[in-house]
Amino acid sequence: MGVLETIHVPAREGRAVQVPAGSRFSVVDEEGGQVVDLFAFVADDVSEYASAAHTRIWVDRLFPRPGQSFVTNRRRPILRFEQDDSPGVHDMLCAACDEIRYRLLGAEDHASCAANLGRAMTALGHPDVDVPQPINLFMNVRVEPDGALTWGPAPTRAGDRVILRTELDSIVVASACPQDLNEINHFRPTPIRIELLD
Amino acid sequence: MGVLETIHVPAREGRAVQVPAGSRFSVVDEEGGQVVDLFAFVADDVSEYASAAHTRIWVDRLFPRPGQSFVTNRRRPILRFEQDDSPGVHDMLCAACDEIRYRLLGAEDHASCAANLGRAMTALGHPDVDVPQPINLFMNVRVEPDGALTWGPAPTRAGDRVILRTELDSIVVASACPQDLNEINHFRPTPIRIELLD
Repeated sequence: MGVLETIHVPAREGRAVQVPAGSRFSVVDEEGGQVVDLFAFVADDVSEYASAAHTRIWVDRLFPRPGQSFVTNRRRPILRFEQDDSPGVHDMLCAACDEIRYRLLGAEDHASCAANLGRAMTALGHPDVDVPQPINLFMNVRVEPDGALTWGPAPTRAGDRVILRTELDSIVVASACPQDLNEINHFRPTPIRIELLD
Repeated sequence: MGVLETIHVPAREGRAVQVPAGSRFSVVDEEGGQVVDLFAFVADDVSEYASAAHTRIWVDRLFPRPGQSFVTNRRRPILRFEQDDSPGVHDMLCAACDEIRYRLLGAEDHASCAANLGRAMTALGHPDVDVPQPINLFMNVRVEPDGALTWGPAPTRAGDRVILRTELDSIVVASACPQDLNEINHFRPTPIRIELLD
């Protein structure tokens, strides 16, 4: 399994890449302990995108298992979860961080996954896209028996990754989550990368 | 606590109603065993609406408790959960049913909560709104320790209700979920009502 192209995503930033249907790619946590907000849009109609709420019904789970797919808001498989070379801790409950969240936490002009998504999509000619609820790779959110959510630091080590395969011509966006006001990234956001695989 | 106005929602249908900020209303399961897909839009800008993904972070729970609020996609409280006169079983994980879901289940031209929402909002002059992930009142979806979701019939009895209070001028939409191909409504969709309270 060779790497055709590597897209480096600096800490606190995001990148978008066109990925044709049937292609495999990995999302790698370079230094460990870093959450990735992942989004996937249908390339020829960005109003269709991977949807957490529709995926949960599709797989009858909070998060797909390897072998299962993420589906769009029109209930079409868009990403197949091929392989998980990580502790297997991921979240699909939480909205992307945005400027409003940081302002509520007391931080003005803070980088956010929502702004990273907007910039990355604008760079590909798609301004003003919706901000879907992301696929939060490596994010450590536990559901307690009483329905409470408890947050912890991402348990990944350097080089941990997931491998996905596009089932539609897609635009994939990965944001190295800039959250440094709680422990999810160990208070230390770090870089990630996307590898397009052969 | 008197009833100022009652909006009857026939089985399988939906209704929208303008509700000024600071108003209380109840959503009543008339015959029992019926799921209600509830939506709330900001009256003067319907691109802002109650958001499941943002609410989960706001309350650090899968579903608010009485005394807590549902917030919008701009992280503003829009509905306060005042009182729960029901078994307390509600869902905020599942997308609204739509035509595509029923087609995948083998049913053409089936009523859906998404279409009910669209019609009700169009009647108030708002065609083409987003279909937010709904607040699924009385819907029985359990999260198992391994992340699996298991579905059961709504446990409500005739007259069970929740009481909410608007925190912004809102358009509230309630759909009596027409799902009759699984057990969530006991295979028998029934009517609901909204009561505007003094």
